[in-house]
Amino acid sequence: MSQNLCIGLAGLGTVGSGLVEMLQKNHDEILRRTGREITIKTVAVHNIAKKRDLPAGVHLTDDAMSLADDPDIQVVVELMGGTTVARELILRAMRNGKSVVTANKALLAEYGREIFALAAEKNVALGYEASSAGAIPVIQTLRDSLAGNHITSVMGILNGTSNYILSEMNNNGFDFPTALKAAQDMGYAEADPSLDIDGQDAAHKLALLIRLAWGVHYDFSKLSIEGIRGLDPLDIQFAREFGYRIKLIGQARDENGKIEAGVFPALVHHSMLLARVNGAYNAVRIEGNAVGSLFLHGLGAGSRPTASAVLGDLLAIARRDEVNSAEANTGFIDALPDAEILPSDETISPWYTRATVRDTYGVLRDIATVFADEGISFAQLIQKAASQDDCVSLVLMTHDTTGTAIKKATRRLYEDGTLLVPATCFRILAASGNEAEGV
Amino acid sequence: MSQNLCIGLAGLGTVGSGLVEMLQKNHDEILRRTGREITIKTVAVHNIAKKRDLPAGVHLTDDAMSLADDPDIQVVVELMGGTTVARELILRAMRNGKSVVTANKALLAEYGREIFALAAEKNVALGYEASSAGAIPVIQTLRDSLAGNHITSVMGILNGTSNYILSEMNNNGFDFPTALKAAQDMGYAEADPSLDIDGQDAAHKLALLIRLAWGVHYDFSKLSIEGIRGLDPLDIQFAREFGYRIKLIGQARDENGKIEAGVFPALVHHSMLLARVNGAYNAVRIEGNAVGSLFLHGLGAGSRPTASAVLGDLLAIARRDEVNSAEANTGFIDALPDAEILPSDETISPWYTRATVRDTYGVLRDIATVFADEGISFAQLIQKAASQDDCVSLVLMTHDTTGTAIKKATRRLYEDGTLLVPATCFRILAASGNEAEGV
Repeated sequence: MSQNLCIGLAGLGTVGSGLVEMLQKNHDEILRRTGREITIKTVAVHNIAKKRDLPAGVHLTDDAMSLADDPDIQVVVELMGGTTVARELILRAMRNGKSVVTANKALLAEYGREIFALAAEKNVALGYEASSAGAIPVIQTLRDSLAGNHITSVMGILNGTSNYILSEMNNNGFDFPTALKAAQDMGYAEADPSLDIDGQDAAHKLALLIRLAWGVHYDFSKLSIEGIRGLDPLDIQFAREFGYRIKLIGQARDENGKIEAGVFPALVHHSMLLARVNGAYNAVRIEGNAVGSLFLHGLGAGSRPTASAVLGDLLAIARRDEVNSAEANTGFIDALPDAEILPSDETISPWYTRATVRDTYGVLRDIATVFADEGISFAQLIQKAASQDDCVSLVLMTHDTTGTAIKKATRRLYEDGTLLVPATCFRILAASGNEAEGV
Repeated sequence: MSQNLCIGLAGLGTVGSGLVEMLQKNHDEILRRTGREITIKTVAVHNIAKKRDLPAGVHLTDDAMSLADDPDIQVVVELMGGTTVARELILRAMRNGKSVVTANKALLAEYGREIFALAAEKNVALGYEASSAGAIPVIQTLRDSLAGNHITSVMGILNGTSNYILSEMNNNGFDFPTALKAAQDMGYAEADPSLDIDGQDAAHKLALLIRLAWGVHYDFSKLSIEGIRGLDPLDIQFAREFGYRIKLIGQARDENGKIEAGVFPALVHHSMLLARVNGAYNAVRIEGNAVGSLFLHGLGAGSRPTASAVLGDLLAIARRDEVNSAEANTGFIDALPDAEILPSDETISPWYTRATVRDTYGVLRDIATVFADEGISFAQLIQKAASQDDCVSLVLMTHDTTGTAIKKATRRLYEDGTLLVPATCFRILAASGNEAEGV
């Protein structure tokens, strides 16, 4: 084992800068834990002319591919993002026998099959703890700690931007545009926030967690994805009246060997720890047949927290030269089969439905008739006072039913004129285990 | 790498039985994750005559030491507990080149230096995830995931029995004996509950976490330990009025290179996730200079949850034959130095004090004078109505001060007759980071 571990870093944005900072700040402790110096030989950046604050002796280049070809570099750390140059860089580095550490969830979700297969073929380590839920060690937990479990469900708050927006709406009564603006002002949301608020970012992470939990390849393009864009504060308020928070949830469950998965806004009961995840934090709740329920909570993004996860992977590589890549990367010995997919709308859960109706005699009877016709029964119902234009909001909480049934019933009611606008429908998160707060 | 991993199991109580069960139930998934059959050759039990439900072909013995001497056995799993036979078994197994997995927190806390040194010398793996916080992967998280951090604090609810008792007192208004009885009826507490309610069990776990967080050996006999025996329901009730729960906390902090550590009942503000840990659950909150705050929550004991942690260790051993024991075991390359210890009473935090005084003129002035004299200032104060014998309870919430100052001030007030009984004093847990609930 050579004394130094020589790395090439692609990308010097928020996370790359955090990594450089923490490697310097925690130098002595890292040395105590690995016995090796971890040195950055070269950093690849887009704009080489820009002034950078780097340790002495670090080379700068604007040719990311040169990291993959440099024989001195043992590990390429890819923190540039995107799925074009980053993909080419990672594949090339692995073909040249180098280990790779990446935070690139989009790349691994969309091109994971190709990348994991090459890592196994070349017997190189692929570290990607930073690609899911930031500083939370969920990759390692699923791959290693819970390896003796049959995992039954993984659910989480996997996007800090959306969670910040939902927290602002919930805590401060903001409407969606105001909360989004607040997130942008805080630096939590991009100028174009689509990837975050429309659920794709959470879905990328969920795809990675499914691979680790069940050893299957879930085609990302088949994931059911709904975001929180335009969420009505009315629903936040009604949910609270029933004791719930609305959260953007990524969830995957094993239903008799089929995987049901999706990203969607859902009502989470306040007694669940997931309901208590505030601001830009992320959290993951895993259920397994041995572990019961395990809940992990931490910062989902940011310079230092993401660097913490990158460092964990780097130190694991520094600590052992020998790689058995199948285990080190996916946690499974063989190439992964395709997941058998159970469409999200065919699984059952309780649902929340808000309907806007004319405040007239017989409306409730009409709704009850159609719901009964679709096999849906009510658990609770509240009717809010009529607004000035004689419309009222009805909130219906159902017993277990399918998304298909809910959507069909509410569409029928809209089409026959009972509902004045299309209904708003959210799942109510169901979880076994006892996390109830000591109220 | 041989196809089978052959283990010897010492102890077939709650955890041992859970391990046997999960190895059978999850056989196919374990094989997919390791490529190896994990087979139990021999189980050592105390009473060999008792009927056992074991897979065909498993040998029974009442000679635990024979596991350490059997050349077929590659890993000894020690789930018998105690610090005499278990210690001898583990040391002998390691001397014979075998890896060891254990859930024995008392043994590792009290004899850790000897055991870790031998593991390093013999280059064998020592897995002990199950020894701290049950199913929560806190060992792996500190050793591996957070290895690139400087850890600033570790605090947790590390004993499920005490937490169950405190939850029952908080949620149901039980007094201590009733809540203890309830815990015993549920099987959470032993007939002699001392190890749990007096804090030793939590302290054993804390000693292990200190080793992993800072790479130091903290002499267990020097740990400050207070339990919850005889806790007065009055304090639970007053704490609630200020927005706090009382929890039995194990805490260790790095104060400029010195380690301040102890187990004590403390007031935890309801906005912290630690306050939401209910029943027999455990939780650990770790702060590091990169990760920020990370919170892990899961079952702290029980057959299957503890077996989940044992299995994680076993599978890690099955996945790699080569061991670099320093890393695999403590996460540090060199032998660990002794911790520099900062006595718990010399560190600062806010304090809660309940004083019982005669309801007469001047009492408050006398208390304020003595507190000021000891450099303590008040944040809040409430006085409860006089009881029938003319006593009143005063609750004082202080600003940051030391345990030494609080104890000195309250002792002076008792000795001079101002307090009718010795004061009850608890720390108020201070945590950085923002975990606040979305109220």
